[in-house]
Amino acid sequence: MNGNDMEAVEALFNPRRMAIVGASTNLAKWGNIIPNNILRDGYKGELYLVNPRGGEIQGIPFHPSLAAIGKEIELAMITIPAEAVEEVIPDCAQAGVKVAIVISGGFSESSPEGRVMEESLVRKAHEHGIRLVGPNTMGITSAEWSLTALMPPVGPRPGHVAFAAQSGNLGTQMLGWGSYRGIGFSRFVCIGNQCDLDFADYLEYFARDEQTRAILLYVEGFHRPRRILELAEEISTAKPIVIYKAGGTSAGSRAAASHSAALAGSREIYQGMIRQGGMIQAQTTEEMLDFSDALVKMPVPQGRRTAILSWGGGWAVVAADLCERAGLDVVPLPPDVHEELASILPSYWSKGNPVDMVGILNLDAHTRCLEVLAASEAYDAIVSLGTINAAGAFGLREPLRETPENEESEAKLNEVRRQYIRDRSTRFAYRVVELQEELGKPIVTVGMPQRDSENLETSDFPWEKISIYTNPERAARVAAMLVERGEYLRSRGV
Amino acid sequence: MNGNDMEAVEALFNPRRMAIVGASTNLAKWGNIIPNNILRDGYKGELYLVNPRGGEIQGIPFHPSLAAIGKEIELAMITIPAEAVEEVIPDCAQAGVKVAIVISGGFSESSPEGRVMEESLVRKAHEHGIRLVGPNTMGITSAEWSLTALMPPVGPRPGHVAFAAQSGNLGTQMLGWGSYRGIGFSRFVCIGNQCDLDFADYLEYFARDEQTRAILLYVEGFHRPRRILELAEEISTAKPIVIYKAGGTSAGSRAAASHSAALAGSREIYQGMIRQGGMIQAQTTEEMLDFSDALVKMPVPQGRRTAILSWGGGWAVVAADLCERAGLDVVPLPPDVHEELASILPSYWSKGNPVDMVGILNLDAHTRCLEVLAASEAYDAIVSLGTINAAGAFGLREPLRETPENEESEAKLNEVRRQYIRDRSTRFAYRVVELQEELGKPIVTVGMPQRDSENLETSDFPWEKISIYTNPERAARVAAMLVERGEYLRSRGV
Repeated sequence: MNGNDMEAVEALFNPRRMAIVGASTNLAKWGNIIPNNILRDGYKGELYLVNPRGGEIQGIPFHPSLAAIGKEIELAMITIPAEAVEEVIPDCAQAGVKVAIVISGGFSESSPEGRVMEESLVRKAHEHGIRLVGPNTMGITSAEWSLTALMPPVGPRPGHVAFAAQSGNLGTQMLGWGSYRGIGFSRFVCIGNQCDLDFADYLEYFARDEQTRAILLYVEGFHRPRRILELAEEISTAKPIVIYKAGGTSAGSRAAASHSAALAGSREIYQGMIRQGGMIQAQTTEEMLDFSDALVKMPVPQGRRTAILSWGGGWAVVAADLCERAGLDVVPLPPDVHEELASILPSYWSKGNPVDMVGILNLDAHTRCLEVLAASEAYDAIVSLGTINAAGAFGLREPLRETPENEESEAKLNEVRRQYIRDRSTRFAYRVVELQEELGKPIVTVGMPQRDSENLETSDFPWEKISIYTNPERAARVAAMLVERGEYLRSRGV
Repeated sequence: MNGNDMEAVEALFNPRRMAIVGASTNLAKWGNIIPNNILRDGYKGELYLVNPRGGEIQGIPFHPSLAAIGKEIELAMITIPAEAVEEVIPDCAQAGVKVAIVISGGFSESSPEGRVMEESLVRKAHEHGIRLVGPNTMGITSAEWSLTALMPPVGPRPGHVAFAAQSGNLGTQMLGWGSYRGIGFSRFVCIGNQCDLDFADYLEYFARDEQTRAILLYVEGFHRPRRILELAEEISTAKPIVIYKAGGTSAGSRAAASHSAALAGSREIYQGMIRQGGMIQAQTTEEMLDFSDALVKMPVPQGRRTAILSWGGGWAVVAADLCERAGLDVVPLPPDVHEELASILPSYWSKGNPVDMVGILNLDAHTRCLEVLAASEAYDAIVSLGTINAAGAFGLREPLRETPENEESEAKLNEVRRQYIRDRSTRFAYRVVELQEELGKPIVTVGMPQRDSENLETSDFPWEKISIYTNPERAARVAAMLVERGEYLRSRGV
């Protein structure tokens, strides 16, 4: 491709000035919705709106053309009908646009005529030194610039996962879902039809990007698989690449061809490429988020020896099964660890690994048990169940039936209990973060889902440094993934 | 066992009068927490509290003994220390108690002395014609009586899943989590040490119970596996039995031995038993809830032919892969269905199965597409993605950054859009329920998680008749499970 790939992607994710070409006063149009989304999240650059018919959005007037703005615009976002896109390219060029996001659909994804139009658009753009994202994309985000240039009303949480998705609906919904769960994103791009800039370009940029610590790809088909493999081999020791490859079955590959015109390729070829490139394969959409988030927040273990710490016995049994099936070694407690734990726990504790803390309500003792296990040289990783988010578990009751007369006193009781649990559970969470940093061992935590996501924003909780899984299956898979990542890194001498 | 098994279980789940032996004014004691939980949820029978030292809870006075109440008490719940439990058995007998739940721990699960004490307790109880639940249990619930006799502050949603769990912490947390998700329970029992009443007794009762439409078991080890198999063979054509068998690995079986003194048994033996008994195996804790809820709310399909309807293309690709891998047949659209869909959707729709509705915002058109697919004789089951809970997807944005100045107008815009989506999404959900009832075909829906669980209570939404899965993996597994259930029933001539 052109030599200005990285310059264009740089401008895409760090635009000092951007413009929406096709701004609209009609509430139902993308040309209205997108600028509103950008304004909502407080974009740190300058936003300009272009529509020759005039108008304004939230007090920002429409300019008749890009050139009429009279300033150099780095990024243009184009929301006008497909047929009209090519015409605005010279105007973009005149305003200094380096890269244009073509939101409009109706190109190669929809008809042979659309394909011809798309090819013509690319030629025109390249003649004018402009690179293209899309067409048929839902947009991009960039946390560094508080930029949410998206069609759907998703507000991404800032963080360190960079995400390129070959699907707008899946990509933006994962972005929303991840943010809701406490996962932060550095950059997001919905790649659309990849008529020009493609997966390889974004991957190359993410590798260099200081804001990005893990890379997430939702892929139906690569345009340049060899370049991707070359890049992945270069990048993947320094930054983990999590990939979800869709279209691996016959029904899925037919669907991918219709959706993104992607040649899904043989499953075996992609498997080989993923392995050789040191990429990490997510088997489910949930794992896409679980894995990329874990790789940002947790250290990689030095081996497979895993200790399980559980508030109660049932979850301990389930977690032991799952960890063993995932290939982790649930090795016995060494005598010194056994002795220390016995001095903390009641006489009827499990006396083995998994460590069942037999339901004790003293959450400070949970923290001491965690410290003992984490400090032991016998273990490379810890899976902790139940203590984290304990307040969530204790906040689950709902007013499903009529309120009893004595509601008030009962509410007070509950509040006292809950406050205690919440304080101690939070203290435990901070200790998880500290121990991970001190000891370089992952502590994978399982907690009940928060009843109220407001807690993510308002309460004193180290969300930016901790991953919480709502069931032990997910925790076991994450722990096993981290172990494999460690083995890969050591095999590459890192 | 004794002939009064069913009489005892009947009294356990339908007590007109119950008493807490060991009621306490100390807020930290189970003898205080449990009665508060019972009062909170408005138990429809009469609750009595017993403690010779006197006191009261929420205005209910403590009686010095069960006999002193002067009425026949069917169910006693005992929260006093293990050593003292046996002593109160004669008092229980005098008051007419049929069944006693022994909350107290410190029996066979904790020491050889505890085991001796437990055996002695059982003998004493049987001498007095009393049957026992536990010891070492977190209690029971019964929706018919609005009875929540539990240690943790979980408020179960009423419904039609009966759940017996060989773990208090896992069982009650699943109960809370399920209720939070919209799953309703008819009965719940934490079986504890199974010193007397055991899995077989509860299973037999659930089979007869009119409130119960699906049975869920969390099992570490059965005491009477042959009886379970016999019962399962009798029951499982009429009522589905979902089972999660824990302790299948060496680490897990060691943990189970320590936790519930269960002999986890060989994985192969349990597998054979599950298959022969026509039970449905949940592979994950999440599937325990997904499967039992689906079996209550959805009809069983007549075959494997599955249509996929998706709001967007990415999820369509993913769902097609998953359904095919799960063994479903994602068969092509017949010409008449193709034609009808083409008349509803824009020209650039997917023109195949999966049906990609290419992101159209007209949710009434989604409903029409669903009607066309469901009515077609070419399909036995439908998987629908994105339309359900669309308001959730559109409500995901959070005030993560500073509020923009123009907050108000933007909030209004969002509200208008959201209200439209919410209304139409709800209409779609009601149509899902109607179509399932009319056509007897399952419609498995995938939607973004609700941002706000209040919606479960307050909004006009058919929660009692619809299951919503937050990712297509879960939906594909549920659809495949329903297909297998159908095949099982047909193989048994049902």
